[in-house]
Amino acid sequence: MSKKKKIAILGSTGSIGTQAFEIIDNNRDKFELFAITGNNNIELLIQQARKLEPEVVATANENHYLTLKEALKDLPIKVFAGIDGICQIVEMQPIDIVLTAMVGYAGLKPTIHAIKAKKKIALANKETLVVAGDLIQKLASENNVSIIPVDSEHSAIFQCLAGEVGNPIDKVILTASGGPFRTFSAEQLKTVTVQQALKHPNWEMGSKITIDSASMMNKGFEVIEAKWLFGLKPEQIEVIVHPQSIIHSMVQFSDTSIKAQLGLPDMKLPILYAFTYPERIKTDYPHLDFSEQKNMTFEKPDVERFRNLALAFEAMKKEGNAPCVLNAANEVVVQSFLQGDIGFLQMSDLIEIALEKIPFIQKPSYQDYVDTDTETRAFTNKLIYK
Amino acid sequence: MSKKKKIAILGSTGSIGTQAFEIIDNNRDKFELFAITGNNNIELLIQQARKLEPEVVATANENHYLTLKEALKDLPIKVFAGIDGICQIVEMQPIDIVLTAMVGYAGLKPTIHAIKAKKKIALANKETLVVAGDLIQKLASENNVSIIPVDSEHSAIFQCLAGEVGNPIDKVILTASGGPFRTFSAEQLKTVTVQQALKHPNWEMGSKITIDSASMMNKGFEVIEAKWLFGLKPEQIEVIVHPQSIIHSMVQFSDTSIKAQLGLPDMKLPILYAFTYPERIKTDYPHLDFSEQKNMTFEKPDVERFRNLALAFEAMKKEGNAPCVLNAANEVVVQSFLQGDIGFLQMSDLIEIALEKIPFIQKPSYQDYVDTDTETRAFTNKLIYK
Repeated sequence: MSKKKKIAILGSTGSIGTQAFEIIDNNRDKFELFAITGNNNIELLIQQARKLEPEVVATANENHYLTLKEALKDLPIKVFAGIDGICQIVEMQPIDIVLTAMVGYAGLKPTIHAIKAKKKIALANKETLVVAGDLIQKLASENNVSIIPVDSEHSAIFQCLAGEVGNPIDKVILTASGGPFRTFSAEQLKTVTVQQALKHPNWEMGSKITIDSASMMNKGFEVIEAKWLFGLKPEQIEVIVHPQSIIHSMVQFSDTSIKAQLGLPDMKLPILYAFTYPERIKTDYPHLDFSEQKNMTFEKPDVERFRNLALAFEAMKKEGNAPCVLNAANEVVVQSFLQGDIGFLQMSDLIEIALEKIPFIQKPSYQDYVDTDTETRAFTNKLIYK
Repeated sequence: MSKKKKIAILGSTGSIGTQAFEIIDNNRDKFELFAITGNNNIELLIQQARKLEPEVVATANENHYLTLKEALKDLPIKVFAGIDGICQIVEMQPIDIVLTAMVGYAGLKPTIHAIKAKKKIALANKETLVVAGDLIQKLASENNVSIIPVDSEHSAIFQCLAGEVGNPIDKVILTASGGPFRTFSAEQLKTVTVQQALKHPNWEMGSKITIDSASMMNKGFEVIEAKWLFGLKPEQIEVIVHPQSIIHSMVQFSDTSIKAQLGLPDMKLPILYAFTYPERIKTDYPHLDFSEQKNMTFEKPDVERFRNLALAFEAMKKEGNAPCVLNAANEVVVQSFLQGDIGFLQMSDLIEIALEKIPFIQKPSYQDYVDTDTETRAFTNKLIYK
């Protein structure tokens, strides 16, 4: 690596964001932190800003602007606020890579701005592709922008595709841990608590994505994300439950050869790879030791018990604004589940109703996506809290 | 692929050779059979020659020359004989790829000639690298020749390294089925029969390599082969027993990421890949289906019971002519075992004595390798049949 890569982290106080921050901190000869943005964890944002002194810091929540401004007034750091502030930041000329690590639908607009400004995208915000994959891929291709996935499954596939440009693919095989309820009966699923759902067997993550993992909506989103990232047809995407999470995903080429990427469950590697790609650098991260006996098992996902996965496949096949409805309804129901307002299985019921009732748009514009999102949230909230 | 690749198969009547022949036969739009060579299965060689009508056919065994010549007299096919005839063939101008699929030490000389003639080598004859890896790699590098491995393990590693040029590697992990005697005690190993040893659980191969697999010498050779093919230090090569043979081998990069190549045990894929590399083409070979539940297990190899593996690591570390001694002694003891003249465990005993007694040469010339080979064979035969 000849020159330091200048990086903007959107969502720097979250699970991915803090790990990305640490990577940059530990590799100052290779990376430079240009900008960080956060939402509500303003104390950590201030701490990060004081530690690595990026050029710009922003809070998505405008209510925190003055606190942030005041806390950094002794440093030569520009302070921005609101989603429009963040959109301005990602366009700034010196930035090489924008890591989109904020949670949910909020990632869409800044990602669009970053692509239009021809920044390389390290994509950790899967909702962006779930909601508006067609729009994003069209923009990326028009602007000749690389989108490098940070999700461990998609990073695995991306790594397996290195050196395989133009080679025909039969399918990608996304592995799924199956989550904490893999072996639960439908009856048991009815009564699972928030606390149970927040305990993921292999990965440490934020609460939204942990619930999505327990309900397998996360895997459903990853299926849709894979479709757009790798230009696949729905039938080219397979999900296999692999409880040990050692194989992070696979690609099966048309000559029958399968390539897989493996390792310990550790998000640092895909984040780092997105920063160093196509190069790799030596790390001291813990590595998988095959000489300690390991057992790997595989099983078909049960879409009867985990209906979210079936709903996601359905929305993907339907195309248009269906995945946007899926995502918006899911954001609402996960929030309600976390608040204890609905049960675990009700989440799928409500999403299914939203998918049926929200008017279908075959070729949505950006505004259609915004409207679909708003409408679906209102509709789903009304179903729950009427 | 724009123009047809012209291929010479050395050892076309063996297990790899016949599969390569079939691949060329089934992909006549992509490949053209330029030359085939065989040893004693003269009937099959004639059959192959009549079917695809290559430009040249040769028998390594000069006693078969007249039979071959006579059988092909109605066709415009040149007929050669002897190892020197084969060395002439591999230098012929139109050839793009030489597949070296003959058995044992006999592969060395033609491979050297092919490299000097700047032919791309599809290497199925692992003894070539075991015996004289330094010499071969030096020649290949001087002549800017690619050596593409056909062994399934090395093909797996080679596939995992696509797109990773210059990226630092921690180690390669060669998988081993463990062979038919994986769970046998040392006591049981003493009395295994030839028939038992010839039954490999996963792969169908010739008898020499099947015995080598049962004794794990094959894996030992693969370790040495990997060292030369991928420019590794001995401590960068690990062997893991994986009885299902689904993962064909792996590479662990210095960022901790592991890439693996997987599939059903089928030599057609690595042969085809060596022909199409860096491209892949669609095939109708049976493919691995993860949705049928699969279990993969891993265990450390037991070098107490399978001493050949320890002997191979030792010879690799010692360098010089030690691997050449290892190979020559092994060729003799396998032959004697197949003839029922010695027991299974005696094979390792005899190889160990040869490694101790044959004079060590630190920097052998080609002639030193030839002499070491002759001397070791004589020595080992004398130990057995004195």
